[in-house]
Amino acid sequence: MQLGLVGLGKMGFNMRERLRRGGHEVIGYDTRAEISDVSTLTALAESLSAPRIVWVMVPSGAITTETIRSLADVLSAGDLVIDGGNSRYTDDLPHAELLGKKGIGYVDAGVSGGVWGLTEGYGLMVGGSDEDVARAMPIFDTLRPEGALEDGFVHAGPVGAGHFTKMVHNGIEYALMTAYSEGYEMLAAEDLVRDPQAVIQAWSNGTVVRSWLQQLLAKALKEDPGLGGISGYTEDSGEGRWTVEEAIRLRVPVPTIAGSLFDRFRSRQDDSPTMKAVAALRNQFGGHSVKSSQ
Amino acid sequence: MQLGLVGLGKMGFNMRERLRRGGHEVIGYDTRAEISDVSTLTALAESLSAPRIVWVMVPSGAITTETIRSLADVLSAGDLVIDGGNSRYTDDLPHAELLGKKGIGYVDAGVSGGVWGLTEGYGLMVGGSDEDVARAMPIFDTLRPEGALEDGFVHAGPVGAGHFTKMVHNGIEYALMTAYSEGYEMLAAEDLVRDPQAVIQAWSNGTVVRSWLQQLLAKALKEDPGLGGISGYTEDSGEGRWTVEEAIRLRVPVPTIAGSLFDRFRSRQDDSPTMKAVAALRNQFGGHSVKSSQ
Amino acid sequence: MQLGLVGLGKMGFNMRERLRRGGHEVIGYDTRAEISDVSTLTALAESLSAPRIVWVMVPSGAITTETIRSLADVLSAGDLVIDGGNSRYTDDLPHAELLGKKGIGYVDAGVSGGVWGLTEGYGLMVGGSDEDVARAMPIFDTLRPEGALEDGFVHAGPVGAGHFTKMVHNGIEYALMTAYSEGYEMLAAEDLVRDPQAVIQAWSNGTVVRSWLQQLLAKALKEDPGLGGISGYTEDSGEGRWTVEEAIRLRVPVPTIAGSLFDRFRSRQDDSPTMKAVAALRNQFGGHSVKSSQ
Amino acid sequence: MQLGLVGLGKMGFNMRERLRRGGHEVIGYDTRAEISDVSTLTALAESLSAPRIVWVMVPSGAITTETIRSLADVLSAGDLVIDGGNSRYTDDLPHAELLGKKGIGYVDAGVSGGVWGLTEGYGLMVGGSDEDVARAMPIFDTLRPEGALEDGFVHAGPVGAGHFTKMVHNGIEYALMTAYSEGYEMLAAEDLVRDPQAVIQAWSNGTVVRSWLQQLLAKALKEDPGLGGISGYTEDSGEGRWTVEEAIRLRVPVPTIAGSLFDRFRSRQDDSPTMKAVAALRNQFGGHSVKSSQ
Repeated sequence: MQLGLVGLGKMGFNMRERLRRGGHEVIGYDTRAEISDVSTLTALAESLSAPRIVWVMVPSGAITTETIRSLADVLSAGDLVIDGGNSRYTDDLPHAELLGKKGIGYVDAGVSGGVWGLTEGYGLMVGGSDEDVARAMPIFDTLRPEGALEDGFVHAGPVGAGHFTKMVHNGIEYALMTAYSEGYEMLAAEDLVRDPQAVIQAWSNGTVVRSWLQQLLAKALKEDPGLGGISGYTEDSGEGRWTVEEAIRLRVPVPTIAGSLFDRFRSRQDDSPTMKAVAALRNQFGGHSVKSSQ
Repeated sequence: MQLGLVGLGKMGFNMRERLRRGGHEVIGYDTRAEISDVSTLTALAESLSAPRIVWVMVPSGAITTETIRSLADVLSAGDLVIDGGNSRYTDDLPHAELLGKKGIGYVDAGVSGGVWGLTEGYGLMVGGSDEDVARAMPIFDTLRPEGALEDGFVHAGPVGAGHFTKMVHNGIEYALMTAYSEGYEMLAAEDLVRDPQAVIQAWSNGTVVRSWLQQLLAKALKEDPGLGGISGYTEDSGEGRWTVEEAIRLRVPVPTIAGSLFDRFRSRQDDSPTMKAVAALRNQFGGHSVKSSQ
Repeated sequence: MQLGLVGLGKMGFNMRERLRRGGHEVIGYDTRAEISDVSTLTALAESLSAPRIVWVMVPSGAITTETIRSLADVLSAGDLVIDGGNSRYTDDLPHAELLGKKGIGYVDAGVSGGVWGLTEGYGLMVGGSDEDVARAMPIFDTLRPEGALEDGFVHAGPVGAGHFTKMVHNGIEYALMTAYSEGYEMLAAEDLVRDPQAVIQAWSNGTVVRSWLQQLLAKALKEDPGLGGISGYTEDSGEGRWTVEEAIRLRVPVPTIAGSLFDRFRSRQDDSPTMKAVAALRNQFGGHSVKSSQ
Repeated sequence: MQLGLVGLGKMGFNMRERLRRGGHEVIGYDTRAEISDVSTLTALAESLSAPRIVWVMVPSGAITTETIRSLADVLSAGDLVIDGGNSRYTDDLPHAELLGKKGIGYVDAGVSGGVWGLTEGYGLMVGGSDEDVARAMPIFDTLRPEGALEDGFVHAGPVGAGHFTKMVHNGIEYALMTAYSEGYEMLAAEDLVRDPQAVIQAWSNGTVVRSWLQQLLAKALKEDPGLGGISGYTEDSGEGRWTVEEAIRLRVPVPTIAGSLFDRFRSRQDDSPTMKAVAALRNQFGGHSVKSSQ
């Protein structure tokens, strides 16, 4: 089918390609003219036959909201907007209402898969009305991985449910990454273990811990044994923070997810103010020597 | 090849079967006569042609040590013992030395896969000399899953390295299980999400969190939506405790693994003494009402 | 000096008494007529000589905001409102602006001390302009404990700083309570220790861990050795949740505070959905038996 | 009374002084001749009138065990040895048995107070028989702080109970230090707060979190606002590690104590291998850029 795609970054660019390979007519818009198919959002709207479908794939927050507002201006009743970005699910209802006032439908789609999605497909979690989701189904069918529908796609609930489940997915992802990495650090610290990479590689088959992340860690260690070329400095893109905030709202204990988030905060500090205070306290009561900062 | 197998419990019984299907001659010994092929360890030794290989698959700790001691009596120089149980790796060197005094070789093998190993194969992590491991390789080749050798088998290092890496594997496993389960609790707590099972099922393909454990959780939730029939009471078999203890020895921070272990301890308490004290404190300074225990 | 006091609950009632003992003229208002000095907020305003000071001590959130709005109606330019409740500090600026439009000043005051404050004084952390704080200083001087000013009172910064620091105070309090309680549980679990209460009592003098909370725990254990009469069910009044949320905003790692908050969530669950899922997973891969829920 | 004191380090030196001020005759022995009262352990034994009391205050582990062994040689039946060092409580029974074979009594004494003990007294937790503890009571009475006996001294139980409770004391201490320090980091991160030191100082009176550690933190921040001169690198002396290990043995969940221990491990790493692996994973699946290590 025909669709517009706003945002041709790392994710959107590949999605345009995958959708085209799947036989869809995709008109992409990006502020970078050299990769954009049209020059403005208005031109995008005009190039699509009504009723239109427009997929939004831009940074979450202010830019997504601004894009939704602009689409409300250039689209018409009966059209459908899908937000496939990493928006906080609490943005979905306001976005849906904004579009709904003009009779435009709204679906939120959590998209997992990163740079591998082009060839392997994207795991999809969507929220919206049955009608809106059904309408976009041909697009979802092309984006999602091959195999059984229920293994790579879920209509999780009403508007917001897609991004909520994607957020939880990412919160889990944080903790999984920490779990494997703690184990890696132990393997690397123990003299008995000749090659941590070989151990983690061997977990690929038959073990309880086998997973895609386990295989990626084996791959990363193969490319850079000892990870000598990489710093522990780790950004976070928001979903982890939101997951902990929503867990607090829901009164759900999430110590491993929260701990993984805090580890990322810590990784970005030159020194830890908390530990400076601990060291200072230790010095105060015990006369324990402290290391001067340099 | 020919081998003896001591211990025909949940794991050993299936391994005998998988090895036989693979063309090996397995003589099994168990204290339960109805499933044992021979009546004593001595009879087991006599029924094998020297140089013998005997695989030990009994509960870790005292029973394994006792079995190793008995094998030292009935086996001869040039024979080989493989401990495939969940022994603490610190037991391996004493066991190897005990057998080594009689000229008997020793290999420690961490075995993952649980009840699925019979059909899917067992992930294997082994420790020992190159010579001893090479000698047992035909057995490992049958036990391990099909596919590339390095994806289901690793010779991790000298004696002890097999059980050490298996211990770390299980430590990671604890934290992975907690990570998915925290996410499940959030999905179950949020009204927007129609069916947590469908969400977790959909993560099977294309997502970053896809794994064997993720699929097992989807399966468990399909069998018992809401997990109404299961209690949160969770045992631990030792590897998690050992992982944290070894992490302390190695000065490796493992907050998610340790937290997962502590959650299991907590799950087995009727009420938490820690939280009783917290509630008592809160009552002391704030006059906050407390719940009486019943 | 003369002041109005809105809210005569557990905290406000005692504060009225302490202020009167200190020679202030306090006119209290509460919806419960039997303890109120006036019958309406309007009557309260009329009974005070301009420029007035009114201390608000009602539940945080909607009730505080509603009270501030009503005060904006009945007070006049030049008056001063102090919010001494446990408001989230993010409410302070809106409240200050609302009152500021009418020329009414605003100070936020974090108040610690609980039921002990009447006799021992209240620890005070306030936010506001130098002028407003100076004006209310006679009140603060009576409420705070005897001793050096800087040991029981701080003008922490502009509007909001008082409640922010009180929030952090309470976040720390959560973790301190958990720390002592984990230690108590260990003492109670170890046969060598004859009487955990006696140990904790003995920490009152000379030790590194001596504190008011340590003394309260000793007191609680003296009143109910073994804490047999108390449940671990523990409420939280909001500050702990806010502390973790603000830590996330500030990118400050707070694992012990967050863990203490999550322990409270867990304490209020009959069974843990997270642990039910962990037990279900363990059963899936290992054939480990599970406990049926009842 | 008369006693021998082995070990005149940071703790022992001050204890000799406090005991002498209390009217005891103390003969101190140390390998550093310039501060030692006698030249050998044998000379120490000879200079004391039987039945003798010898207090051992040397580094825990091998040095303490060696000292106990030497004392078994030079002392006689009816004498009494007190180990006041930071020994692991599991060393106490072997030490008691070693001495007991020669009819020498044994008491283990956990001593808290650090460099402040000379003037303020030491918090004491002791283990041993009623008879042995009674015999050493005049020494304990001088070492402990002034005030009620039960507030600075506890006979916690049989041999081992003193060091066990001291170990738990230190485990709690770790978590308390982290709790205050997390709060400090939040205060320092928030622009609204003018001076974290003033806030923490103000908690000294009337608040729920007032404690000796709180006062020490205020003092440390007064001496070095911002802690610019101190590194977060923090050693640990063993008790924290032992506390977590014993908690595992007792199946007691101690997430805040364990987390505080792990934070210290982390503070001593130039970069975190765990976080390097997390960053590598993030790069693998998301194409997220990583920071190169330098």
